[in-house]
Order: sequence, then structure tokens, then C-alpha cells
Amino acid sequence: MKEITKKNFEGYKYIDGGVCAAKGFKANGLYCGIKKTSVSDGNESPISGNKNDIGLVMSDVMCAAAGVYTQNKVKGAPVTVTKRNLETTGGKAQAIIVNSKNANTCNADGEQKACRMCELAADQLGIKPEEVIVASTGVIGQILPIEPIENCIEELAAGLSYDGNEKAATAIMTTDTVKKEVAVEFEVDGKLCRLGGMGKGSGMIHPNMATTLNFITTDCAVSSDMLRKALSEVVKITYNCLSVDGDQSTNDTCVVMANGLAGNAEITSAGEEFEVFKKALYIVMMNITKMLAKDGEGATKLLECTVTGAKDLDTAITVAKSVICSPLFKCAMFGADANWGRILCAVGYADADFDINKVDVSLSSKAGRIDVCRNGSGIDFSEEEAKKVLIEDEITISVSIGDGEGTATAWGCDLTYDYVKINGDYRS
Amino acid sequence: MKEITKKNFEGYKYIDGGVCAAKGFKANGLYCGIKKTSVSDGNESPISGNKNDIGLVMSDVMCAAAGVYTQNKVKGAPVTVTKRNLETTGGKAQAIIVNSKNANTCNADGEQKACRMCELAADQLGIKPEEVIVASTGVIGQILPIEPIENCIEELAAGLSYDGNEKAATAIMTTDTVKKEVAVEFEVDGKLCRLGGMGKGSGMIHPNMATTLNFITTDCAVSSDMLRKALSEVVKITYNCLSVDGDQSTNDTCVVMANGLAGNAEITSAGEEFEVFKKALYIVMMNITKMLAKDGEGATKLLECTVTGAKDLDTAITVAKSVICSPLFKCAMFGADANWGRILCAVGYADADFDINKVDVSLSSKAGRIDVCRNGSGIDFSEEEAKKVLIEDEITISVSIGDGEGTATAWGCDLTYDYVKINGDYRS
Repeated sequence: MKEITKKNFEGYKYIDGGVCAAKGFKANGLYCGIKKTSVSDGNESPISGNKNDIGLVMSDVMCAAAGVYTQNKVKGAPVTVTKRNLETTGGKAQAIIVNSKNANTCNADGEQKACRMCELAADQLGIKPEEVIVASTGVIGQILPIEPIENCIEELAAGLSYDGNEKAATAIMTTDTVKKEVAVEFEVDGKLCRLGGMGKGSGMIHPNMATTLNFITTDCAVSSDMLRKALSEVVKITYNCLSVDGDQSTNDTCVVMANGLAGNAEITSAGEEFEVFKKALYIVMMNITKMLAKDGEGATKLLECTVTGAKDLDTAITVAKSVICSPLFKCAMFGADANWGRILCAVGYADADFDINKVDVSLSSKAGRIDVCRNGSGIDFSEEEAKKVLIEDEITISVSIGDGEGTATAWGCDLTYDYVKINGDYRS
Repeated sequence: MKEITKKNFEGYKYIDGGVCAAKGFKANGLYCGIKKTSVSDGNESPISGNKNDIGLVMSDVMCAAAGVYTQNKVKGAPVTVTKRNLETTGGKAQAIIVNSKNANTCNADGEQKACRMCELAADQLGIKPEEVIVASTGVIGQILPIEPIENCIEELAAGLSYDGNEKAATAIMTTDTVKKEVAVEFEVDGKLCRLGGMGKGSGMIHPNMATTLNFITTDCAVSSDMLRKALSEVVKITYNCLSVDGDQSTNDTCVVMANGLAGNAEITSAGEEFEVFKKALYIVMMNITKMLAKDGEGATKLLECTVTGAKDLDTAITVAKSVICSPLFKCAMFGADANWGRILCAVGYADADFDINKVDVSLSSKAGRIDVCRNGSGIDFSEEEAKKVLIEDEITISVSIGDGEGTATAWGCDLTYDYVKINGDYRS
């Protein structure tokens, strides 16, 4: 049920492999016991048998790399260190080390520990510490025990393999109930390229510039500058249009690494090939976004709000996110109740410029479609039909707000008893 | 349990009487059957036996009046009509008519029905329709049946009395579990004055300029201009610092009426007497704010976040509201879990300027106080002590963010299973 429905895009083919789908990327993940020595926090994957808490990703050769990070003033120490590393290398990286069960945030020794993680990985891999991306996720404000990482690093590096993507993808999970991996194949410059990624996150999701932890790898050759450009454009219309609960995490990080092993001529400027690459990045990030939404803490439904007719992209995004974030609307969807007044209410308090008397709203799913509001006023519809549409687990809310060109989609999930249960009893 | 703890203020005495506490104000409320002819919406007061759905308040003489309203682009028709009436009269009004069970919002005939309500009241009371304040609350997007109001208006007006405040206060309730009335006595210009009010609201509460429905009456003589000034200053630090669920209602209205029957020389400018009056308004509105928070849908706890050391008032308000609005923090409070990382996270994503490394946090209740964070990092505390503090039903979160003069308080409640239950099944 937590599987998402994937749309097809011409010229792109979904493939397996996650972060190992692209040529020359190895990964591994294992259990090192970060939680054992920390306070019990109840923050472990509900997937039976998955206790992995540390992951490693390595490219055979140096990569162009770009990252986007949380805008929260409280930043996890790994965010600070990764940002600095990418600045130091001028947008180059060769490996990622990441742990779950502890966010390494709000700790006096946070930066020191995050740097130590980079050193440990670099020593094993024969690269420089600043060529390592570091990330952590889990409970905030508890000291990260470094010994379990020191003790496991040799085994972690030794176990790197070209099909280790799933081990890494499970190592970054916290309250996630499913692992999140997507990859696609596409052609640039006559060469077959691959781009894949993994993500994690279930609660504390309301990204601004990036979300949760997301790592994307590709063998397409792209310069650091163009990688940054593609990432910032795509993150705006994917992760940044996602909200599970309105809480913006302290550790949000999204990093993309391109090692060029596909053999295409490096993309160094805008143009057709850049667009092909950017679309691959969009497909992977958009699908991971949907996976994150559908696996939101306690969620039973994926909600997708598409706004059309806005005067520009930003207006469309603002309105779509306002609907997706409304707790009252999220509860109504949990109850499969076509309470469209709550949609109108959320559209109305969005900080955006449009004429509320031109707003049309419809609700749809694979069971059908019902129009509920036209020109800002209610229209008659069958409650019975509405129930049939809303009982499904993927619901689209279509909101037309005028006749402009701006369109955007935002993703979220319903608000349920289980969200409260999970978060009323997170640490203990 | 839903009763709030009231702080005492020197020179002000809490009295009974709600909107009838001030001299010369009558009120009434009764059941006219608005819901019977509408679609069943489950939106009725859980107070056994309370079915009142229409209320009327009347002053013996003309009043100076001022209002603040929702900033939502979707405005209930009564909001539009009340605003226009107060403009037409230049800030004068003599009566209020208000119904629950139907918001009269997003209906093509909304304004016509709202005007009709004013006419019906005016005819009975021998005043002009534009001297009537009109308000509605309840489900959005269903046609308001006017016949029940036409049929009851004579009885409603005939039953007006100087102790009818409770009937009116219960008539405006929707999912509220307790009526909300506060009144105080104070002295201006050697004359004893009274100021009292009633409020309603439980969900869809995240005011901006006003919240929910709130009606304040006073016999203190104050000019319309100074009434507007007092209301806008006080609403900023009371209702606008309240959030139950982040959803800003379409019908938020707060109106204050001053009839001058206390006999003091009219307050027409700033100065000592204006300050005395404004403080009375603050005490009543602040207490109603706390009542609204504590009776938030599904709530088991009142949360009060006080921010000190901010560079200015606006910064303090922004940070305090960010904490109060965090769903993750609200869930933690439901679980009596001292998960202070979530407080830091919410402080960090507040759109305000301060140094996160100077942030201290403590949690307190009548059971004691624990410090959990100093200079942005965690400090050791006893989880057992914390549990004792947090198991109480009124929790104060104290956040110090520097050494500025700005301080503010925001109010909210925990997020519980019952919030989801109430809102997953609101209309049907």
C-alpha cells in the first residue's frame, strides 16, 4: 500500500539499483550500534529485521557534487561540515557517510564528531576527508557515540559493492516503513546514462531548499556548476513542495554526485542535453518526494494538490502547499470526507495574489473525479460518489485559480491517529 | 479540567456576567433549528442539552464599536457585511446577531442572507440594519437557511435580558466543550467600569488580526477611534498569538462595543486612562485566548510559550508562535515527553533574527521547572522530574533568545487522537 504509482515519461526508463544504478557507484550499510549506547528513543525502523544504522556510498572516481540544505537556524553539525567540505573542494566529492538513530544536532561536540566521521571514511577509502559528504538523522540533542562508527568502519568499507544500494537505503531509515529508491535510464550525447537516488524521512518534513536526507548519484558527466543549477531548480518543484507535518528538520540535506563514467561529453552549459539531464533528476526526485509523502508518519493516503491558472510558478507553489499543509483538510482526507470548504479555506489563507471568486476545485483518484466548487462557491455533488473517490489511497486535489500560466504540484499525506501515536511517544 | 488558571492583576477584579457584565447590555440565545434544515454536519456542541444556535446582544444605547477580521481571502459573508456596516456608521453599533452551525461562507447568496439577519434584528429592536453586527460560524459552503431565523427573531428579541449572557455564549459554540466568558471591573475617572466578553472556537484556529468569534462589551466611555486603537494593539498580543491547528478561519471576527453608561468622561486620546482601559481589554482577551487554547479540539493541555530577550516584540511573537504551532512538539506534549529538540527545531525555523547559540529553554508547570537547553545545546536533566512537570494540564515553555527587550507569549494546545477523530469525521 505504501508503494506509489509511478508516471511514465517518454525517453526515460525506470530501472533498479537506487544509488548503485549509475556506473561506478558502490554502497554498503550495516548495524554498528549507535542507539545501544545512546538513550532509548523508540526511533527505529519498523521494518522487521532492519537495524542498519550506518551507510557508505563511494564512487570509483571523483565526482562533481552539489548540495542543498535545511534553512533552519538550528543546523545539524553534519550539515555545516558537508557544506564546508563542498566549498573547500569547489564542488567535488567521492563518498558519502551517513548514520541514522542520532541527528548529531544541538551537541557541543557535534562538528568534531561529524569531521571525525569524514576522516574515518577517508582513511578507509584512500581519499581526503573533505571529499566526503557526511549526514546524520535521528533524535536531536543527544551526544553521538563515535566508538560504534570507529569500530565498524573497516567492515563497512570492505563490504562496499556495486549492488549494495539497498543496504545503504535501509541504513538511513528512521520511522520510515519502506525504503525509498528510484532510478532511471536515459540518453545524453548518444550515451546511455543512469541516475538514481535514495531518500529517507517520515516526520519533521516541511522542506525549504532540501528535505530530509536524499542522495542522488549519476554517471552522466555534468559540471559542478550545472549540477548545482539543476539541483536548485528541481528541488524547488519537488522536495520543497512536500510537507508531512509543517516541521522543517534541522538536518535536511540533498546531495547529488555525478562521476561522468557514462562517457558523454560533460554538460557545462544550458541547452537540450542539460534539459534531458534535469528531467531525469526531476523524475527521480519527484518520485522520491511522492514516496516520502505516502510514507509520512501515520499516513494512509498520498495527497497530491495540483494548482493551475496561477499568475506564476511561485503563486502556484504557495497555494498548492497551503492546501497540503492544512491539518483540518488532512484529517478530512483521513475520514474520506469531501469537506471542500477546508480546501477553500486553505487556498484563501495562502499568501498569494489571485481572485478567490475564480477558484474551481475537484477531487479525483483512480475511482473517478468529482467537481466540488466552481467560482469560489459550492456546487452540488453526490456524497456517495465522493466517498468512492476518496476511499482510495492516492488522491489528487485539482485547484484552478484563474487563467495564468503558473502551475505546480505539492505532495502531502493525511493526518491520522498513528501520527499522534508515533510522535506522542517518540523518545521513550 | 478545561477551566483555565486566571492570573490576578492589581486594580482589576474578575466578575461574572460575560457580555452582560457591563451596564446596559442585554443578551439572549436559543435554538431555532438552523442545522435541521441543513445537511447533517456533526457540528454541534458536546455540552449535553445545549442546542442553542442563535444569539442576540443589545445595548440600551448606541455604542462606539470597532472590529478586526480574518485576513483569509475567503471571507464569510457576515464578515463583509459587518465591516461595511461599521464603515457606514463611522464606528457605531447597538446590537449583535450571531448564529452557529453554518458559516454562511462560499455561498452565492451569502451577503443577501447576512444583510437579512441584520434587518430582522433591527426591525425587532427599533434600530437601523447597519447598526447591527452580524456573524456566523459552522460548516463552510452550505446554504444558510434563513427561515428558522425569521421564525425565531421575535422570541429571540423578546427574551433579551440583563443576565442572558450565558444563553448567548452557548449559542455561538460549535465543537467547543466549554462556554468562554470573562469579565472584569476597574476604575476610570473615578467611575466603576466593567468590560466583559464571550468567545467561541475550538478548531480552524490560527488567527491573523482576529480569531474565531469574539464579542466584547464595556460600559466605559471610549471613542470609536481609541476603541480601534486599543483593539488592534491588544489583539496582536492575545488572539493573534493563539494557534490550535494553523488553519486560519474564514469567519474570524472580534468586535468590541462601548456604551459609555459607566459615566466616565469619554476616553478620546492616549494617556493614563486609556492605558487602564486597554489593560482591562487585555485581561479579558488574554483569558479568552487561554480558554480557546485549552479547549482546542481534542486538547488535553494548555501550552503557553513565553519568549524573552528578543530584539523586539515582533521577533518574540514570531518565535513563540513557531513553537506553539509545531505538530511534533504538540504531540510530544500530549505524551508528556520532554523532547526539547523539537522546541529548538521550531525556534530555528521561525522567520526571525537572533543567535541560535544564545537560546535557553525551560519547561514548567505547577509541579515545578526543569531547564533542558542552554546556549543552544542540551543539558542534563532528570527524565523523571520532567515527566512530573509535563503530566500537568498547563505547561509553560520559556525560551530566552538573547538580551533584547522583546518579550511575548503565545498559546496553543497539544495534538491528540481526539483532534484527528473530531476532524476526520466532522460533516457526516
